[in-house]
Order: sequence, then structure tokens, then C-alpha cells
Amino acid sequence: MRYGACYYPEHWPEDRWPTDAKLMRDAGFNVVRMAEFAWVHMEPSEGRFNFDWLHRAIDLLADHGIQTVLGTPTAAPPAWLAQKRPDIMRVREDGHRCVFGLRQHGCVNSPDFRRASDRIVRAMAGELGKHDAVIGWQIDNEFGQPCYCAVCRAEFQRWLADLYSGLDALNAAWGTTFWSQIYSDWSQIPTPTAAMGPPNPGLGLDYRRFMTSSFDTFQASQIAILRELSPGKPITHNFMGFLPETLDYRQLARDLDFASWDNYPMYRPDLAPARIAVNHDQTRGLKRRNFWVMEQQSGPAGWGTMMSQPRPGQLRLFVYHAVGRGADGILYFRWRPCRYGIEQYWHGILDHDGSTNRRYDEISKVGAELKSIWGELEGSEPVAEVAIINDYDSRFAFQIQKSNPEFAYADHARLYYDALHRLNVTVDVTCCDIDLRRYKIVIAPALFVLKEETAVKLRDYVESGGMLIATFRTGVKDQYSRIYDEPLPARLRDVFGIRVAEYSSPFATEENRIIADGFPESTARLWLDALEPDTAQVLAVYDPGGFAAGQPAITRNSFGSGTAIYVGCAPSQDFLNAFVRAICEERGVTLGPASPPNVEIAVRRKGDTELLFITNHNAEPVSVDSVTAGSELLTGRAVDGGVSLEPYGVAVVRR
Amino acid sequence: MRYGACYYPEHWPEDRWPTDAKLMRDAGFNVVRMAEFAWVHMEPSEGRFNFDWLHRAIDLLADHGIQTVLGTPTAAPPAWLAQKRPDIMRVREDGHRCVFGLRQHGCVNSPDFRRASDRIVRAMAGELGKHDAVIGWQIDNEFGQPCYCAVCRAEFQRWLADLYSGLDALNAAWGTTFWSQIYSDWSQIPTPTAAMGPPNPGLGLDYRRFMTSSFDTFQASQIAILRELSPGKPITHNFMGFLPETLDYRQLARDLDFASWDNYPMYRPDLAPARIAVNHDQTRGLKRRNFWVMEQQSGPAGWGTMMSQPRPGQLRLFVYHAVGRGADGILYFRWRPCRYGIEQYWHGILDHDGSTNRRYDEISKVGAELKSIWGELEGSEPVAEVAIINDYDSRFAFQIQKSNPEFAYADHARLYYDALHRLNVTVDVTCCDIDLRRYKIVIAPALFVLKEETAVKLRDYVESGGMLIATFRTGVKDQYSRIYDEPLPARLRDVFGIRVAEYSSPFATEENRIIADGFPESTARLWLDALEPDTAQVLAVYDPGGFAAGQPAITRNSFGSGTAIYVGCAPSQDFLNAFVRAICEERGVTLGPASPPNVEIAVRRKGDTELLFITNHNAEPVSVDSVTAGSELLTGRAVDGGVSLEPYGVAVVRR
Amino acid sequence: MRYGACYYPEHWPEDRWPTDAKLMRDAGFNVVRMAEFAWVHMEPSEGRFNFDWLHRAIDLLADHGIQTVLGTPTAAPPAWLAQKRPDIMRVREDGHRCVFGLRQHGCVNSPDFRRASDRIVRAMAGELGKHDAVIGWQIDNEFGQPCYCAVCRAEFQRWLADLYSGLDALNAAWGTTFWSQIYSDWSQIPTPTAAMGPPNPGLGLDYRRFMTSSFDTFQASQIAILRELSPGKPITHNFMGFLPETLDYRQLARDLDFASWDNYPMYRPDLAPARIAVNHDQTRGLKRRNFWVMEQQSGPAGWGTMMSQPRPGQLRLFVYHAVGRGADGILYFRWRPCRYGIEQYWHGILDHDGSTNRRYDEISKVGAELKSIWGELEGSEPVAEVAIINDYDSRFAFQIQKSNPEFAYADHARLYYDALHRLNVTVDVTCCDIDLRRYKIVIAPALFVLKEETAVKLRDYVESGGMLIATFRTGVKDQYSRIYDEPLPARLRDVFGIRVAEYSSPFATEENRIIADGFPESTARLWLDALEPDTAQVLAVYDPGGFAAGQPAITRNSFGSGTAIYVGCAPSQDFLNAFVRAICEERGVTLGPASPPNVEIAVRRKGDTELLFITNHNAEPVSVDSVTAGSELLTGRAVDGGVSLEPYGVAVVRR
Repeated sequence: MRYGACYYPEHWPEDRWPTDAKLMRDAGFNVVRMAEFAWVHMEPSEGRFNFDWLHRAIDLLADHGIQTVLGTPTAAPPAWLAQKRPDIMRVREDGHRCVFGLRQHGCVNSPDFRRASDRIVRAMAGELGKHDAVIGWQIDNEFGQPCYCAVCRAEFQRWLADLYSGLDALNAAWGTTFWSQIYSDWSQIPTPTAAMGPPNPGLGLDYRRFMTSSFDTFQASQIAILRELSPGKPITHNFMGFLPETLDYRQLARDLDFASWDNYPMYRPDLAPARIAVNHDQTRGLKRRNFWVMEQQSGPAGWGTMMSQPRPGQLRLFVYHAVGRGADGILYFRWRPCRYGIEQYWHGILDHDGSTNRRYDEISKVGAELKSIWGELEGSEPVAEVAIINDYDSRFAFQIQKSNPEFAYADHARLYYDALHRLNVTVDVTCCDIDLRRYKIVIAPALFVLKEETAVKLRDYVESGGMLIATFRTGVKDQYSRIYDEPLPARLRDVFGIRVAEYSSPFATEENRIIADGFPESTARLWLDALEPDTAQVLAVYDPGGFAAGQPAITRNSFGSGTAIYVGCAPSQDFLNAFVRAICEERGVTLGPASPPNVEIAVRRKGDTELLFITNHNAEPVSVDSVTAGSELLTGRAVDGGVSLEPYGVAVVRR
Repeated sequence: MRYGACYYPEHWPEDRWPTDAKLMRDAGFNVVRMAEFAWVHMEPSEGRFNFDWLHRAIDLLADHGIQTVLGTPTAAPPAWLAQKRPDIMRVREDGHRCVFGLRQHGCVNSPDFRRASDRIVRAMAGELGKHDAVIGWQIDNEFGQPCYCAVCRAEFQRWLADLYSGLDALNAAWGTTFWSQIYSDWSQIPTPTAAMGPPNPGLGLDYRRFMTSSFDTFQASQIAILRELSPGKPITHNFMGFLPETLDYRQLARDLDFASWDNYPMYRPDLAPARIAVNHDQTRGLKRRNFWVMEQQSGPAGWGTMMSQPRPGQLRLFVYHAVGRGADGILYFRWRPCRYGIEQYWHGILDHDGSTNRRYDEISKVGAELKSIWGELEGSEPVAEVAIINDYDSRFAFQIQKSNPEFAYADHARLYYDALHRLNVTVDVTCCDIDLRRYKIVIAPALFVLKEETAVKLRDYVESGGMLIATFRTGVKDQYSRIYDEPLPARLRDVFGIRVAEYSSPFATEENRIIADGFPESTARLWLDALEPDTAQVLAVYDPGGFAAGQPAITRNSFGSGTAIYVGCAPSQDFLNAFVRAICEERGVTLGPASPPNVEIAVRRKGDTELLFITNHNAEPVSVDSVTAGSELLTGRAVDGGVSLEPYGVAVVRR
Repeated sequence: MRYGACYYPEHWPEDRWPTDAKLMRDAGFNVVRMAEFAWVHMEPSEGRFNFDWLHRAIDLLADHGIQTVLGTPTAAPPAWLAQKRPDIMRVREDGHRCVFGLRQHGCVNSPDFRRASDRIVRAMAGELGKHDAVIGWQIDNEFGQPCYCAVCRAEFQRWLADLYSGLDALNAAWGTTFWSQIYSDWSQIPTPTAAMGPPNPGLGLDYRRFMTSSFDTFQASQIAILRELSPGKPITHNFMGFLPETLDYRQLARDLDFASWDNYPMYRPDLAPARIAVNHDQTRGLKRRNFWVMEQQSGPAGWGTMMSQPRPGQLRLFVYHAVGRGADGILYFRWRPCRYGIEQYWHGILDHDGSTNRRYDEISKVGAELKSIWGELEGSEPVAEVAIINDYDSRFAFQIQKSNPEFAYADHARLYYDALHRLNVTVDVTCCDIDLRRYKIVIAPALFVLKEETAVKLRDYVESGGMLIATFRTGVKDQYSRIYDEPLPARLRDVFGIRVAEYSSPFATEENRIIADGFPESTARLWLDALEPDTAQVLAVYDPGGFAAGQPAITRNSFGSGTAIYVGCAPSQDFLNAFVRAICEERGVTLGPASPPNVEIAVRRKGDTELLFITNHNAEPVSVDSVTAGSELLTGRAVDGGVSLEPYGVAVVRR
């Protein structure tokens, strides 16, 4: 288990470093991340390098038992570079070139920026890549700012020329016949800046893919240097969890050794654990392996405004919450807040003046606890029987065509995630490009862009005995964002045993409902598919008085040895809780122990051993009666007829 | 009667065309609109033309009894043109030049764009202008996107130099003495982009007029070519109804043979018919003649988001609604939705996959019905005894100076329109440049910019026996947007027998009321004119406790042989319903038969015959007891003591 | 007492001027402001001057007993200048250069603009500076539009080079080590346009100071010319009161002879007097001397929209309101509204057509009244025992870092202002750079940026017997916007006898409360400081159930001979009313007579004489029982057991 903080020795006088090192050691830390914004300190002017300070910092920390993950500093290109090579500056969607003064202003396609980035990474890796105390690397920081500069435009045109067999193929793929947009020369193809207005959906989708590809290439170049000069040291990138959808994280994660993410719960007093849990499960799903939290919020955070202080217990709570869902490393952001710069308000563990405080004490307590239980945890991991598909192509396409004004992909997926979370069922939030057969249930919400190979994979999964749950707007678009030339759900009608006879995107003020035998009545929101069953059985129909009165809204089909369920609208959370529970029970999915509202029970397994992480996200004490036996590791006490938790309290039960 | 669809053969494989033609014929179609976005298909590169495909499409459709309206394709200049002549691209109000990728990106003042537009129109008309199956032309598509480029600026300066006798006259007209804005050279005059901030009202008004003039010139150039090469074929443009106010539709309609508009009711389940009816009446008012609906919404519509599916019956409902108000041609937009492009979600009659459906069936039923009753309809038209003035100069001026934050010209005019609509009174929504004497009542809401000749016309109308109803903000500004140098309402004080002693633009939170003998009490909103009667009689006064307690709010004056009513505030809809009814009764205006809420009865007349179009816009069945005799044409049954209508049902009664 | 209007003879035919002059004289006017937007009339083309018209206007008015304040016209550079020297045009924060057509489009750092400005001022002052009827000058108009052009950028770099001992010092001050922003060349330093995103707080603060300095230099250049060519004539600038915080008014006021401001109450029927009073007190605080209202709203106002008409009595009310708080000059804006230009809707005293009206009559009545009581008023002034600190550096810093999303400096300060206003206590709203010892109480709300010298001054004030009330976010930042390297409140912990143990910026939905002995319970909003007392006594603690349960929220400390109170959250207005009253009573602050809600009693003193300005801001009549003796000057009647006021009524009582 790695436990530590993000540390910026370059922000502080060197005579302070020993105090910091000692305080970290006392807090039970064994790792820091350093240097990911320190470009100018390592290369104060072009080609002149200085790593002495970093050597000294790494060595000092190592003397205190603390090892280092180094970040490549390419998220913060220095002023001298911006001045010397103005073309490295990213152009925003509004057409304005970034002005130096923030971060993430480099264009990943700029040859000058690529050259400068590789040079600093090569210098860094050459200098420190084989240092014993350096245990790994982070590439850049929180990728995600797209660029629309002239270089990107030319590069996009080249990328398209590689992708398509010719301009005719591109014109056919994008359907540029519409509104006379046929391109007769690659150089005519624009980038979808704000001055264009809403883009052709095919162009818009391809530009997002191109951006992922650009970041991927940028990252790959750094990875190649690191693998050469720092062999055997694992490489990661700090993603941002489930919500961001500018880049395809799944593609970016392929080259990495492990995934990590930056966890900022913002510490509302009444934060529902599922809102954070989905991010852990998504990050674990990127490599389907345990992960790190590279930045764990350690105090109030914000730039111009800041948000609430964590209440006593909340810092500890969210550590166990993360570990329970598969985190094997947790680094707080940041050790001590900066006294200047745009993140002055992004608090760290210590106070601005360097003094310790309630937060430090709580974090130190956790450090000691983790040390005591790490032996038990090592090698354990969450094991999921259910998967939720997180499809970036569909998310890109929905950005361009939200479909219903109230629809948001993430919210829609979370309806299902939350239903499973309520049952304390372990879920992999992952993509379609894996063997789905290991899962008892696969839920694919709104698989708007359905590639041919994905359709084959889902078909095979059901045919061979799987249980697939899909929702409205599945199989609408092919890989080029063209609407399929067949009834919906395209490519999968026989699997679901239906066709969509008609659909409606209801006004927010409309009232529509569905009625299903054995389940609570429910509203039907966001989208209404009226289904025409072929071989499918009808599970729910629309209420009279609204759209498609009496027509099927939810169906269930046997296909091969498996089952395929289609949900044609967004039901209420209550309905879905009951509905998902019934399917889990039918499929023999292991339900976690029952828990009161906002109390989560996550499970890590190692062989026969189960480790239950029971976290109480309420500001009130609770009792969990469903866990009746086992050994509570933090207290060392046997569980005997239930577990009692203080406000924001935690228990780790081995059974 | 013309009934058909907008058809895009260039979007589909040619072997599908015969199927489409057959299905159209089966639906009762006799017309399509084609080619209005097909520039690149007709001129794939500069000066190289290809009309073969269009010939084949026109001929195939003609073989199925379907004739063609051709659209000139200048709303979608192709990529090769945008690349070769970048200056054709329009500059938006925010100062950004359009990026290729949408439509309506051409600057109508660009010499290159004008040349290219005339060339394609000339080629098209030369090739197809005398084709038997081509029955008419549409110019461009939905004019309305202003430009602010350097060419427009220079052209604006020239236009002003033509308009004004010299710079002194312009400076006097705009009052540039204010804030030292006197122009000493024509070339100093700017365009009112966002970077200017709010413009001088005179400049702002003139720029809007200049834009209308620019589109008018652009259109005239195409019309001249068509009249030369396609003689005798009527020419139209598809306007957007009552709401848009970027261009003066009245001026643009002058050169056209007939008016048409694009009708997108968006199919809320509970849509009030008056919201759509005003658009029909305004389009009819452009030429005071029956008109076409060039695009009639045929399914869910939207770009990034889409809206509700029409409920069963609604498609049919809105056809009869249109016909009842004077539509002699109705073309659905579109035959089949495009599988790609930004309008993927803009549904057509067929589904994306080309299959027929409930919508096709309903539309086909209407096709058969229309055929059966067309003989009865031919030559009939709505005949109005009441006019509402729709003044574009005033609308332009209100864009620059909204006056009260809650005020909107269209909403204000609709207060009066809706009161008349509730009475099933036929109304012309038209402009002042006609003989008003034919109307028993003329309502001129908020005639903010009052030209001298308009004042004369209104004075004459009243003097010769008319009934004029005007409201606050009448006669405030002269034709240059200068405030008149006399008490309000300028030029018409003697006609109304009042002067405005004082006015106030109330805060939304203020409560003001008026009291009128014999009418319900009413709130007074948006504007408060305190009137000082000279010869006028007081009809309503302000309530104590608010602004202008006890002072007159509504007056009535005898002038010459007529009457002039001035309404100094915005009363409630209930008040106006009663007030307008009383005036209609007094003036002997023919009221339509009474109808339940959201049931409209529109009348077309031919000689002595009245055709009543009774449309039920409710989702529930209704009975109309007021229509007690006549013959219902769709069922062929005699009306006998009332008409019963199903949800969204329709009856056409001859009497 | 100066009483008059802003007058624009250049907007009207000269044969109207005598009528205006006569009407002004009849209204009791003795002053006008002229020419502040008349550049093009005085210099119609470069270097060609024409002051004849202005001479004639000044002389004509002088003949009617009306003297003139001249405005330098640099807020409205003419079109010929904008065309000839395009670089004079200001660049907005969004990066767009202003387009000619509004005003305030000049860049005060542009050498061309500076040259042109000085030239017109020199010509004007040379021509009219010694004219007997010219009694003073106003520089430019309502300073406040920042510029971001290339000239400003270079000038900013030079300004910084002057301010800091070198780049190292600047890098240390701004903490550019954060995110690799270290500048290695002055020319790298950017301006904080929108394309940068949120700026480094040090850069952002310095840019705002630089802008103040730029306007100050621009103003100083004009002042030098005027002092040379128009000796002995007092110079002012018309500020905008308490709300604007783009420029440091305190710094700009230093060079002026007296301060003035533009008072636009907007005349809501129920406007609370404290909303306006704070502006008077702040303007008086700029020079701590009586002031002028250079523009007093005389009718509905607005550009594109306008607001309510003043109710009968309101015009008079706000004159006495101003005089009561120290206004010795009041000029209405404007004499007559312009018939054209963007301010057509900015009404004047007369109507657009030049006729007199209710407003003119009311204003004339006031003119006569003022003449009759001026002898009593002359030399009197408000005398404050309480000061509220208005710190522009802190306001600048809060613009960059609002801290809590709901926080606004002005609102926060007004909590305290309003509590004092309710007690009719005279307050100076002023800055820290004065001798504070004259005040019985000093309130320093949220003194976010605490310079060393200010800390010393506050410490001395308390030590020597003062009563200081400070609130959360005091002493957070040093003069460079760096967070102090010590516990909060930095530099003043011993003065307050506390340290801030922890703080939280609560979500708007959180409920937090404080409990204080002897005061009403109160919510705690916007910010929550949990205080750790050292020598301080606890006055209030946080309620259980929220943040920092039971911890101190308000403390009081004896320090030296004085007292320092620290308020760690934003309590309710009710709480503060009681709390501030208790402190006032303890300190022996002179409370004004009690008055009903929205009735203000302001006091001017001269020797032993007190002049009470009792203004009733209610639409209903009120009685003030607390004023039981004295002489009412407007009626000449003795006060005998209370004063009765009509709606919006006024009394001036000498006692």
C-alpha cells in the first residue's frame, strides 16, 4: 500500500524540507509525487538543465523512508518556451489562442512543443530514471484540453487521410452531401471551432477521436523515452474519473502500466457515496486492475472560490472508501497549500504557514491504521460479476447531439450504477473491448454509436448465456455517426426480439408513466421508445394518457442461451432499484450485505477471504445489522451481531 | 391544392428513387421541392455543371404525377467556393468570420458570392427553367443571417451616401452630436458589431434596413435571371412566420409572386392554436393572398436535441389548420430524414431506413381527403374585417431599445391577436402600406417608429370612419429613430384626443392596476402611460396605490367620422378579450361561431359559400354546439345540431 | 450651495438656449456642467478649434446668474481621431478592440490618445480657464474601463520594472514558481485578458493597481494643464459611488480639490435609503470633506430599457437626502433628454420636446427652498464618530478570488453600514491611510489584503484606546497577494487575542448558526472561522450540528487601552443591528434620533447647531416622535412633539 502526498519542494525554502520529511514519515507516508509542474526549475532556459534540487529532495525523502513518483512536467510549459515558440500555445474552441499565465496551454500536436516535451522528459529520465528511490512515473497531468490551432487542423486532415481510403470515403462516411458540404480537397476540412456552429456529427466525432489520438501519440512519445531510460518503473497518468468525456480514457490507458485518478469529493456534509464510487470503479475498469488515487483531496479546494472544509472523520472515510473499491495507493493533494499562484485556495494537509492541524492528525491516524492492516489487504481486489459499459464514442456523439435537452450520459448510466450500489454489488465500469463472458450481467446504457464489432460481441455474449440490459438510443449510429439504415436497435433487433416502432423525446413538462407487473409504478423520462415485440416478452407498457399509450416500454427476450432486456425510457430510481435487484437475484449475483442509506459496504477478495469496507457517509451514527460475524481489523475486535459506526465512521471486517 | 414534400434525391441511391416516387404518389402527393441545398451536386467545381441527376429525378417524379418547385441553392455555398474565395464567408455579430461547416455562411454583399450565386442560378434556370414539370421557384432558404464584414461595411457606407443628401444630413438624422460621434468622412461609419456595444439607435435601425436591402438586392438579382430564363413560373421564398425580425419580410415579399413559410409547431401535446395561427395570418398578410406552407413539420425536429413526436391526429390537424387560414400548398419537411449531417434528427415522413409508418399513413389519409374536397376549396380564401399592423421598423427599433425589460413586440401584438382568435374572427396581420379602409378595425400595437406617411394614413383611416386601436409607445420616434420634438403620441394627438402627460416603465415587481367601467379589473404591465385627455373620453383609469393614481389609462376619441382608442398599458388577456369583443360587436365585425378553448374555427369564403375549418387542438374530444347546420365535407354527412370532434380531430363544414 | 443641471447646448438649436436659461433661472439654478462630451464641437478636426458656441452658452447662462463647471471631453474622443489613430482605441478584456460608436473607447496609456487629450484640454483651458463664469473643472467622465492593448502591456511591464527591484523580486512576489510561471524577461509578462483564464493573484492585483495608476497619470496630466491655465478653479471627477471597484477611487481622489459622484437611485417605489446613503458617505470619505452630486437622476433612466418614473416627492426627497449627508452641490442629469443617441431614454428634467412638467415643478420648488435655507446650511457638515474601511486592494483581490461563491465585499460591508444607518449614526466610509484615532469605532470588513503599514495603523489605533471590529478573511494576504506565512489573522493575532484554528466556506445549502449571550440567535453564512482564543473573550459560538460545533465564532479582546472584536462569519442583519447598537452604546457613540423603518435622519453640524435632515422613503406618511424640539426650516414652523411627514416627505430641523 502506497500512502503519501503530492509534494512541491520547489515552492519552499530548502531549510524547511527536513521538517516536511519528518512530518510525512510521522504520518505514515511512504510515497510522494513530485516535479509534475516544475519544468522551469529543471530547465530554466532552453537546453540548460538543473536537477540538483530534485536529487536533494528525493534523497532527503528517501532517508525518511519515502519514495518518489516523478511527474513529467509537460502540463506547464515555461514562459521562455511560450515566448520563443508562440505556436506551442493551444487555441481554444472559441478561436482564441491561450495567453500565457495558466497551465495546459501546450498544443500536443505542435512540433515545437513535442520536441521541447521530449527533451525535458529525456533529460529527466536520463538523470533520475534509475534512481532507486524513484518508483514510477506520471505522464503530464489531467489530460483533456483540446486544441483547434492551424497545426491541429493540418494534422487532423492528415489523420483523416490515413483513416479513410480517400475523400470519397470520407464524404460518404460523414454524409457531406447534406447541405453541399462535399470536400474536394483535404485542405478544405475545417476544425469544429465555435465559429462553425454545431458540426457535422461525423466530423465532430472524428475530431474528438483525433484529439484522443493526439494525446495518445504525445503520451506514447514520453512513454517510449521512459521505458528506455527508466526501465522497469511503472508509468501512469492521473485521469479525472467518470465524468470527463473530452478524451477516450480507455484508449489512453492502454499504454500505461496502471491507472490512477484525482479524487475531489468536495466534502459536502451529506455526500452520497455512489457519486464518488463510480469514479473508483471506472478507473479500476480502465485496466481492470487495482489503481491509485494520485490526488486525494485533503482540505477545502477551489480557485477563485473554495468549498467546504472536510468534517472530522471525512478524510479518513474517503481513504477507506477508495481502498475498499481497489485503491492500492493514495496520495493527498497536496502536502501544504501554496502561498501564491492560482491554487492558493487549494488547501493541503498542512496549513499555509506549515503548521499541523486536525487534518494532519486524522491523516496520520489513517497512516498508522493502514500500516497495521496492509498485510491483510495486499493482493486483494474487488471482484465484479456485473459490468456497466462506459462507451466514449457514444459519449462523444451525445456531446454533439444531446438528443433530449435533459439527457446526460453520465446521469443515465448512474441510474443503473446507483441501483447496483444500493445492493452493495461490485461493478466494473468498463468498455466493450474485453471478454464480457466473465460477467453475469452486462448493462450497456444508451449505446448510441454501435460499431459492428461491438454488436458482434454483445450478440455473442447473450447467445452464450449472458444477461444484457440495454436502454433507449442503442444501436442508433454506425461508427461514422450515420444513423443505421434499418429499424432500431440496429444490428441487435433479433437479440432483443423487438424493433422500435416509434420514439419521442418528451418535453420536460410532459407526464409519461410505465406500468410493470410486480414493480412499483414509475415515471418515464428523457426518452420514450414504443417497442414492437417480435420474439420478446413485454415487461412494462406505457400508461394511457401519454405517448404510446399501452405500447411496450420494457421487453425481455431469450436469445441463444441468454437473455436480453431493453428498457425504452428512463424509469425512476425506485423502479430501477427493484428491477435491477430482481435481475441480480435471478442471475445469482452476489449481493453485498444490506446497509442503511448512504452506508456503503465494498468488498475486496483474496482467495477465500473477504474484506468488507463499511463506510458511513452520514453525519449520524448507524448500525449495520447485516454483518454478523468476522473480525474488525481497525479495532482488532470480533464482530458480534452487527457493526456500529460513528458519524463518518469506518469498519474493515475480515470474514 | 398542392400537397407534397421536400425531397432530396441527392441523399439517396438512385435505385431507391422509384420507391419514393411510388410512395409519394400513393400518399396523394402532387408536388415536391428540390435542389435548394444541392449546389455542389449541380456545380461540383467552379463552372463545371451537372444537372443530369436532377433531370432524372424531375422526370421520374413527373411520371408519377408529381411536379417540382426548384430551390436556388445559395443558402449552401460549397466547400470549393469557400476555399477559393474566403471573402464570401459571412462575419457574425461577434466579429468572427464563419467557418465552413454549416449553411447560410455566404455574405449577400460579397461580389464573389453574388457572382457565384448568379452563375449557379443562371445555369439552373437555363437548364430547367422551361421544363414542364417545373412549376415554380424558391429563392435561397430562410433568409435572415446578417453579416458584418468589411465589404458590408463599405457597402453600408455607400448605401447611406445614397440615402442621405450628405454627411450633415446623416449626422442630423442619427444625432451624432451626442457623445461627439459626428462623422466627417463616410469611411468612418462603423458596423454595429458586438465590439461596439449598443449602437446609436439611428445607426442600428439603418443597419437593419440596409441588411433587408442587401438581401432584397441579392434576391432581385436571382429573380431577374429566373424571370428571363423561366418565364411564367411563380417565384416564392420560404419565410419563417411572425417571430423573426432580422429582416423586413414585407419588403422582401414585394418582388415575389406568392409568399410561403416554414411551419414547425413542435407538437407539444397541448399547443394553443393561436400560437401557430398568427404565423399563417402574417404570411397571408405579406401579399394579402393565399400562401403556401413550404415546410410543414412531419416528425420530431431538432439539431442537437429533438422534440416530441406528433401525437396521432396532430399531423392531420395542422394541415387543416393551415388550409383553413389560407394555405393552398403544403409540403412536408422532409420526405425522409437524412442519415447524416447536422439535421439527422430533423425527422421526415418516412423513417431513417425508408420504411413507412404511422406518420406516412396519416399523411396519406390527408392526401386522399384533400383530393376529395379540393374542388370545394379552390378559389376560396379567408376574408378579414380586422387588421393587426406588423411594423418591422418598430420591431427593429425595439431590438435596440426594448424599453421595458419584459417587453417583446410579438408578445404584445399577440395579446390583441389572441383576443380576436378566441372570437374566431379572421385577421390580416399586415403592414401600413395598404389601403386600410377595407377594415372595420385596425389595431396598431406599439407603433414605435411612426413615419410621416404612416401617420397620414392612420389619420385618414380614422377620419374616414375607421376604428383604430393603438397602444403605448406609439408615435415615439421618427423615421430616423429620433424622438419626436412634440408630446406623445406624436403626429396623432388630435386623432386620439390626448397627450401622454407622463410615462413609467414599471419594475416587474411593481403592482399596477386599471379600472374600467363594464370590464373586469386588470393588472397594468410593461408600460404605464398617464394620459391627459383633450377631446377624448376616459375608458379606464389607474388604480390608487400605484403609478399615476386615478389618471386615465385608456381613452377613446371621435375623430372625423371614426374612432381612435389609445391603450396606455398592457392589460391582462382576460380584460382584452372582453374589451376587444365589445369593440368588434360595436363595429359589426363578423364573429366566428363560438368554440371551446383551443378549438379553432377558421373560415374560407368563395362567393356566398363559407367553409368552416374546425380544428380541435385538445387531447380530448369536444363538441362544438354553435355550428348547427351545413355539410361536413370529410365525412360527407350533414351537420345536425353540432359537431363532435375526436382528440386532435377536424371537421370541414360548408354552409 | 450649488444647484443646477448638466446642460448640452450643442444638442439644441441656439435659439432655444435663452428659453433654457430662463427656465433654469426660474428653477433656482446657479450652476451647469457643460462640454464634457463635446470634443468634436470644440475640435472638429485635428488642431482646428472652435469655442465660440461655448463662449456664447457660458455668457448667456452667466447673464441668468448661472455659472459653469467645464468637463474635459476625453471620455468621448471623436471619429476623426479614432480613424486617424486607430491605436487609441481601447482593447476589452475579451481581447476585442473597441469599435467606434460608444464612448470611453480611449486607451489612457496610448501616447496618441494622451497627446490628443492634453491638446484639447490645453486649448480649452487656454480659452476658457480664466473666464469669470467658469468656476471649476471636471476631468473626463466616470473613469473605469480598463484596457488590455499592446501599449498597456508594454507599459505594465515598465511599471512593474519600476515597482520591483528586479525580475527575481517580481517572481518572488507573485510566486511564479507555481506552475512553472517564472518570468526570465520582462517582455514575457502578459496582461490578464479573458484568453488567459483566471490570473495569478499577484499579477491580477498588480494589473488593477496599474490601471488605477494609468488613469491617475492620465488625470494628473490634465490637472497640471488646468492648474497652469485656470488657476484657482477647483477640479473634481465624477465617481460612481460605493459599488464600482475597477479603480482605486481613493488614489484618484488625492489630486482632486473635491470629490463628486453620479447618483442614480433608479426610483424604485420602495427604495431603502441606506442603499444610496452609503454612496454619499463613501464619496464624502474620499476627501473627508463635503462633496457634490455631479449627476442627480432627474427622470426615468436607461439605455435599451428604462426604469421607473420618480413618484411625486421622490426627486425632492433625494436632494435632501444628499444634502443631509454632505452634498454642497447638486446637478441634475440632465436638463433635457436627448432626442437621439444611445441615451435617448436617459430622461432629463424637461421632456424630449422641451416642455416643463411635474418634475420641473418639483425641482423648482426645491430650488426655492434651498435658497431659503442655504444660509443655515453653509459651512455645516456631517461629523462621524464611526468609520467603515473601504479597502480597494482587498476588493481587487476578492474580484480574483471571491472566496465563497455568494460573497460580495460591498454586501458584506453593508451589513455593518446598514446596522449603523438604522441607528442614524453618521459614518465615514473611508480608507486606512488616515488618522483613525478620531473615531470611536472603526469597522474593517474582510480586510483581505493587509499591508504591513495598515496592520501597524490598526494595532496603534486599538492600542491607543480604539474599538476595532474586523471580520473573517482579515489579514489573509500580504501586499503581493501572497497568503501570509503565519496563522490568521496575520500580523494582528495578538490584537484580537485569537488565531483562526480552521475555516470553512460553506455551501449555500448548509445551515450553520451562532449563539451569543444577550443577542438574538443568528444564521452564520458565507464564511465560518473557528476561532481559538488566546487572550480573547468569547462572545458567540457555533451551534451544534454544523461546522465547528461549539467553537468560538465571535471574540473580543482587550489590547492596550482599546478593544478588538473579531466576527468570524456573516451573521444575520437582525443580529448585527443589535450587536452594533450595543457597541455604539458602550463606546458612547452619538446615536441619531430613533426613526421608523426607511425613514432616515441625517445630521449636519456647524458649531453647536445641529441640522437634522429627516427623509421619509416610504410611500406612506409617517410620524417621527423622537424629534421633539427645534425649528423646521422648510415650513418655518417650530417642532412641537414630533414631526409628521407625507409620503416621500422631508423635514429639516435645526436644534
